[in-house]
Amino acid sequence: MSNLKKLSRASVVRLELYLEVLEQMQKEGRTHVTSAEIGEYAGLAPVKIRQDLFGLGTDGKPRVGYDVSDLAQLIRNAFDMDRAKSACLVGFGNLGRALAGSNIWSKAGFRLAAVFDRDPNVIGLEALEDVQVKSINEIFGVIKSEEIETGIITVPASAAQDTANHLVNAGVRSIWNFAPIKISAPENIVVENQSLAWGLITLSYRMKLAM
Amino acid sequence: MSNLKKLSRASVVRLELYLEVLEQMQKEGRTHVTSAEIGEYAGLAPVKIRQDLFGLGTDGKPRVGYDVSDLAQLIRNAFDMDRAKSACLVGFGNLGRALAGSNIWSKAGFRLAAVFDRDPNVIGLEALEDVQVKSINEIFGVIKSEEIETGIITVPASAAQDTANHLVNAGVRSIWNFAPIKISAPENIVVENQSLAWGLITLSYRMKLAM
Repeated sequence: MSNLKKLSRASVVRLELYLEVLEQMQKEGRTHVTSAEIGEYAGLAPVKIRQDLFGLGTDGKPRVGYDVSDLAQLIRNAFDMDRAKSACLVGFGNLGRALAGSNIWSKAGFRLAAVFDRDPNVIGLEALEDVQVKSINEIFGVIKSEEIETGIITVPASAAQDTANHLVNAGVRSIWNFAPIKISAPENIVVENQSLAWGLITLSYRMKLAM
Repeated sequence: MSNLKKLSRASVVRLELYLEVLEQMQKEGRTHVTSAEIGEYAGLAPVKIRQDLFGLGTDGKPRVGYDVSDLAQLIRNAFDMDRAKSACLVGFGNLGRALAGSNIWSKAGFRLAAVFDRDPNVIGLEALEDVQVKSINEIFGVIKSEEIETGIITVPASAAQDTANHLVNAGVRSIWNFAPIKISAPENIVVENQSLAWGLITLSYRMKLAM
């Protein structure tokens, strides 16, 4: 593990935002970027950005700024994005289908290795190429054999805690929970609750500002 | 419009996090909360939280802390969450269906007033009680008649820019874009890009920390 000290949630969000700018710039063929340019995109003072990046162990050059690909790689390393990780998804409803079919996995170094559901009409469907929906009863064996570290919960709120318990018992280290309910898990399990409502709240705020 | 100065994106995220804690505490019947308690949940120093809340115009009382419902209301007002706003969704695929059926709308003061798609097999489906999926060709009239301010884009990346253009021409003031592509819109339109990948990246980082 690196000597990186624990970042606050706010710092993590800022670094994700910087990475987004950097990846956009890589696509555009840019080689260097200044803290002022990142700041314009992220809505933050350049001095804050320099602080954050100094904390990661890097410093921009006067006038030239930061090397875009070096900086992107530094953030990717800090977030362990290039380590190959396996995940499974529980709940192949609308949200599960949308996530399974999305391009988010490889971006963060994840492979969606298994999908589970308890509905007999859904079990056996092709979730991805080479990934068929399995019965939730198989979760224990599959998590072991596929060395799955992360479980994604996309079941209704009423089934979320049970699902979390299954995942924990089967040995995952982390849970990404989309069910609109707070789930309990042992302290050593990383639980990330995804709040889709936040995007709407941010929109509401920015519309007020723009009035 | 209030005298609230423009918050950075990072401050907005922090305030959303505080609101989440406060709403959880309201459910539990708590009346007061200290900055230390909010800090523990949010992973931030209490002094930072007091700064943020002082910026909203409030101060905790020594030992007692903040009034939970007053503080929640202050944040709701700052984000204009209690003003009734109408939204429409374009693209009734898996993600559109998941969002339409979720409980995020009323939380932020939104009503999902219309859903559009271009697939004849999808047009006419019941998206919500009293909301049937309409043809994208009706978007202009419906946005006017329903006084829709916000459009949510859940179409594939290849159709996202066209959809954004339709929404802008029909008169929305803001766009919540789920397509994994940067869309262009006039400067006066608020565009919020939703990155689902961020949750996975945060998870990856927190798993590394926990190793």
